[in-house]
Amino acid sequence: MAPLIINVHYFIQFFFFFSFFPATRGLSVLSVDMRAMDNKKAHNTSRYKNTSLIVRRNKEFILIIRFDRPFNNQQDNVQIEFMIGSSPDENRGTYITVFIGKEKRDGRWNGRVIGTQGNDVTVGITPDASCIIGRFRTFVTVMTDLGKQRTARNPDTDFYVLFNPWDPDTDRHEYVLNDVGIIYNGEYNNISSRSWNYGQFEEGVLDACLLVLDAGKVPLLYRGNAIELVRQGSALMNSQDDNGVLVGNWSSDYSIGTAPTAWTGSPEILLKYAKDGGLPVCFAQCWVFAGVLNTFLRCLGIPARVVTNFASAHDNTGNLKTDIILDENGGVSRSRTRDSVWNYHSWNEVYMRRPDLPEKYSGWQVVDSTPQETSDGLYRCGPTSVNAIKDGELSYPFDARFVFAELNSDVIYYQSDKYGNTKIIQVDTTYVGKLLVTKRVNSNAYDDITSTYKYPEGSDKDRQAMQMAERRGIAPRDYIPLAETGVHIELQGDIIKMGENFKLTLNIKNQTSQKCTLGATITGCVVYYTGVTSSIFKLESKAASVDPWKSEPDFTTSEYMPYLLEQSNLLFVVYGRIQETGMALTTMRVVALRPPELTIKVYVTGTPRVGKDFMVTVSFRNPFNFILKNVQLRLESPGLILTKLKTYDQIAPGGTLQYTDTITPQYPGKKVLMACLDCATVRQVTNQLEIFVQ
Amino acid sequence: MAPLIINVHYFIQFFFFFSFFPATRGLSVLSVDMRAMDNKKAHNTSRYKNTSLIVRRNKEFILIIRFDRPFNNQQDNVQIEFMIGSSPDENRGTYITVFIGKEKRDGRWNGRVIGTQGNDVTVGITPDASCIIGRFRTFVTVMTDLGKQRTARNPDTDFYVLFNPWDPDTDRHEYVLNDVGIIYNGEYNNISSRSWNYGQFEEGVLDACLLVLDAGKVPLLYRGNAIELVRQGSALMNSQDDNGVLVGNWSSDYSIGTAPTAWTGSPEILLKYAKDGGLPVCFAQCWVFAGVLNTFLRCLGIPARVVTNFASAHDNTGNLKTDIILDENGGVSRSRTRDSVWNYHSWNEVYMRRPDLPEKYSGWQVVDSTPQETSDGLYRCGPTSVNAIKDGELSYPFDARFVFAELNSDVIYYQSDKYGNTKIIQVDTTYVGKLLVTKRVNSNAYDDITSTYKYPEGSDKDRQAMQMAERRGIAPRDYIPLAETGVHIELQGDIIKMGENFKLTLNIKNQTSQKCTLGATITGCVVYYTGVTSSIFKLESKAASVDPWKSEPDFTTSEYMPYLLEQSNLLFVVYGRIQETGMALTTMRVVALRPPELTIKVYVTGTPRVGKDFMVTVSFRNPFNFILKNVQLRLESPGLILTKLKTYDQIAPGGTLQYTDTITPQYPGKKVLMACLDCATVRQVTNQLEIFVQ
Repeated sequence: MAPLIINVHYFIQFFFFFSFFPATRGLSVLSVDMRAMDNKKAHNTSRYKNTSLIVRRNKEFILIIRFDRPFNNQQDNVQIEFMIGSSPDENRGTYITVFIGKEKRDGRWNGRVIGTQGNDVTVGITPDASCIIGRFRTFVTVMTDLGKQRTARNPDTDFYVLFNPWDPDTDRHEYVLNDVGIIYNGEYNNISSRSWNYGQFEEGVLDACLLVLDAGKVPLLYRGNAIELVRQGSALMNSQDDNGVLVGNWSSDYSIGTAPTAWTGSPEILLKYAKDGGLPVCFAQCWVFAGVLNTFLRCLGIPARVVTNFASAHDNTGNLKTDIILDENGGVSRSRTRDSVWNYHSWNEVYMRRPDLPEKYSGWQVVDSTPQETSDGLYRCGPTSVNAIKDGELSYPFDARFVFAELNSDVIYYQSDKYGNTKIIQVDTTYVGKLLVTKRVNSNAYDDITSTYKYPEGSDKDRQAMQMAERRGIAPRDYIPLAETGVHIELQGDIIKMGENFKLTLNIKNQTSQKCTLGATITGCVVYYTGVTSSIFKLESKAASVDPWKSEPDFTTSEYMPYLLEQSNLLFVVYGRIQETGMALTTMRVVALRPPELTIKVYVTGTPRVGKDFMVTVSFRNPFNFILKNVQLRLESPGLILTKLKTYDQIAPGGTLQYTDTITPQYPGKKVLMACLDCATVRQVTNQLEIFVQ
Repeated sequence: MAPLIINVHYFIQFFFFFSFFPATRGLSVLSVDMRAMDNKKAHNTSRYKNTSLIVRRNKEFILIIRFDRPFNNQQDNVQIEFMIGSSPDENRGTYITVFIGKEKRDGRWNGRVIGTQGNDVTVGITPDASCIIGRFRTFVTVMTDLGKQRTARNPDTDFYVLFNPWDPDTDRHEYVLNDVGIIYNGEYNNISSRSWNYGQFEEGVLDACLLVLDAGKVPLLYRGNAIELVRQGSALMNSQDDNGVLVGNWSSDYSIGTAPTAWTGSPEILLKYAKDGGLPVCFAQCWVFAGVLNTFLRCLGIPARVVTNFASAHDNTGNLKTDIILDENGGVSRSRTRDSVWNYHSWNEVYMRRPDLPEKYSGWQVVDSTPQETSDGLYRCGPTSVNAIKDGELSYPFDARFVFAELNSDVIYYQSDKYGNTKIIQVDTTYVGKLLVTKRVNSNAYDDITSTYKYPEGSDKDRQAMQMAERRGIAPRDYIPLAETGVHIELQGDIIKMGENFKLTLNIKNQTSQKCTLGATITGCVVYYTGVTSSIFKLESKAASVDPWKSEPDFTTSEYMPYLLEQSNLLFVVYGRIQETGMALTTMRVVALRPPELTIKVYVTGTPRVGKDFMVTVSFRNPFNFILKNVQLRLESPGLILTKLKTYDQIAPGGTLQYTDTITPQYPGKKVLMACLDCATVRQVTNQLEIFVQ
């Protein structure tokens, strides 16, 4: 019964205190000031349009507690409590205590008394480096021998904890703090682009990003782990499997929602998702998924950027081969071609440490929220180390094989005979993963980052990476060598304006000593940017004898306009047969059409200034000989105006549209006005204009 | 127009053939014989109670095609087609063609004409090494210039393709072909066991295993990949997330289903699942999940075994620490202890190549279908390389960290004060992962396989493995060193029969030069095998002075019997306080109670023989002073009898039960009779008897 005796003794001590230090009894908390303005400045979070305190973890912030009498750190026993979620638990990091005063205890978060002044105590608090991300509640508890006295819940003392980008070398100004960006599209030798409003600081966006995690039932325990959060984010941007943010749609029928091409930025999408209580927003394609995921990541403090891979293989069949099946006549067999090469595909990169992997695989990681294939049961992809992809080191999590295939697949052309049996007629090892680009830091130009993903084609290092990939379970590229034809064919076609005629050139190079007669079939089809073919609009057969020969078929407007899809890509496939040898050869090329122009103009005397009105005009002329119906026009500018949406029933051939608005800037700095016009027959009509507000 | 001309030419050739060799026209298929008996013998699949052909991939089987005239391999053009699933596709491996006759083509599967005899052609077919597992349909198609002529669908020519264990060194006789096994339980120094009927060859079990994949919507494309199949199997044995086979239940209320302790094998469960169209079966705990997963794996041809880990940590909080929180009085705080140490935990190992990992990580892999924690969104675990776990190389897929924690967690004892604040009072680095065992090949004894998972505690290699684990992101075990008390305490308690009194001994070792007075509080509680505590039945405080001292508290029957749970484990926790120094120390121990006996007897003159009746009797006496109600008795024997289930309303104190049955053996060989008696108050009453049928 010894312990009981000790307890009695302990109580006697307490009574002793009560009688000799009556001052210790009455301590009460009058107020807690989170010093939002000062702390936000120090934590680079001032730009969030949110009145609460927002801090980055692993960095001290201060708060001031006002008591009803001076605080005595030798006698008073006070703890500050921080809680998140519905069942705070010390072991799970959802209930954190920081002791000030006579009792000292090491906890997850560091706390120290910085100074006292009258009844005010200034306390420094440092959330630990693995702290959960989200909105915490603050309480101050005075402990006496009679029990605890805790302050009441006060939403004004709630605060947000965000990630703290780990490496000071990352350009945080771009990858965390820049709220506009450029996403590249088109094709590798004719790169187009559009501006995107990431808008991570807009009012309500931070809460919407946290709602995404709540709606996705991401346990609080995981929310301190950046790797886990990035992976969950990749699953939650799409609505497959879970009630994610965006519904993917590649059908070209977007009538029950907004066309993927019509959006100009993320805030409109995230705020709609939040307003509808977590109902997925219609519709998205890859750049929309990538744009919204970028907002989510930058908003929570993870350095991120959008990357575009031109000629991106989508390996449906789980090998390193993209299979294109031609029918007996040399045309692409739509029903039998399951894999596809996307003209371009946009994904995200995040810059992070990977404590779970060998050290060299920290740095940029691929993460992709476009629902392509399931990864371990859910539609998501990554994070996977770019360095590991480059080395062919594909064993490490997550989804390195899928990303490797997007960059390194071979295109295999098969021809099927009349029985439906197929045989390989050509292998193209260089078509896929031609070029990767991302927006340059502090610039609107792009950086070619292909070399971060791939060693030069044909180099020793390239071969080593492929061998490593094979040792890590990628099926070897073990084709039966094809007989060498000695003849090469190549298609050339320039980018032109939509609606104009254009020139397609077939170059034939005969590298044999023999004369060669080529029977060539050219199929033209309209394709989605995903490489999936729609209508076939042109099928032409020609024959020619070689040395070098050129044919110049002119396709007229009437031939492709009726078939055009939203993204205006034409795919031409040539199937040739050398009459002397009976050998077959084939090639393909995408031609992207340039959409009509949209003009943004600003009318201002001198330079735009805070608080001073100016006028902006967006104008468009319908260059086509058909009516444009149900036209949507969006104008937005992060930090300047929220999304303005106008709809027009129709624009007659040759007709013009002009939208004018008055803007009163509220914050100084560089602003980007972005406009987008969208209707079922003409998509990707966008423009942007940079202005500087003084 | 050259290609067209060639086509015309081609048709002319055909007409030529028709006129000179009219015999080639009329070829028809009369029958296809899959040679089930011969092929099954060669493929070690004769024991499956299934009339269809069952083969293992990457090994030739033969079939005989009977034509209506002799086959001419220079002129006839015949292909054999194999299809699986609803939309067979050559690119996805769900439509396979094998050519015999004049046209040759390399395909996924190898085919060759072995011989012809009259109108019969014997063909050898070798499914490729990565072939999809499942039930294929067979067609034979004769191709003429007039088109294809395909045989009609005939279920008699359907056949199953299974995995072919990759390494001839594995003991396939045990790990693929043995249909009974032993699963160990109890505690590490008092190991108990029960027999389990894997029954992978029982009628309907193979189809039930394939149904599990269909119900789980596992794409056919993945079903050729053993790693993927094992991972899917781990998710699909439990009903969490998906309509898996078994519902986990650790509540001790099993009234709406069968108690986990009452099952004697897998076929009853799998056949019920199949009969109910994929409705999850109630109820399971770890050994049931492991037993059924073992059946699933062996049935599909993947070498597998059940392994038991004694003192298995369940790390809920994602660190390497199992936290035991004691309240102010030294008792275990049930509400605040989230982690637990399972007395034992059973999982599976599969023997497989890991082409996705460095070569040394092939071999045994852990896979666990008990729903403990989600892995990448679903309740599943593994496969993860045992060798990699041993090396602390935890970056590779899948779930190495979780398994590592089950084996290597430290037990941290905290004590909370009256404010609910906790501090560490003791760390035990050796409690967890004490011993791993599995059934020995060709024996009913167990093998200690601890050394395949762990280097000897405290060795250099052990330290290196822990350092590697830390480099791979496992949180370091960075405790603030506790002051050394110089006093060690240990509890000793022997296994006894349920209902008997038993002796618990507390040994105190004083290693200091000072006298030491210990105030000790002993809490006794009834625990589930998962370490979760139920009722507290004993709380006693004692004090003693040391050198070595012994206390011998006798607990009487009345003290624990009313609280007993199905698995009869008592947990004792000692909390001691040294009065001279004020230092605390603590330890715990599980005592497993031995359930009453069940007797199986066989009455036969001479030895049991095929076709000759014999009698079996199962008997039981209720040794308790209370009535046993709603008693279930199961008797089964794979290859001898299906599960017999009898229920008894009650067995009075001292009363006996005797069940007699007559058995007529149909197959010779070693057979195991297994019996299990189960009711709410007494569980784990099992026995088995081996007999040999001539």
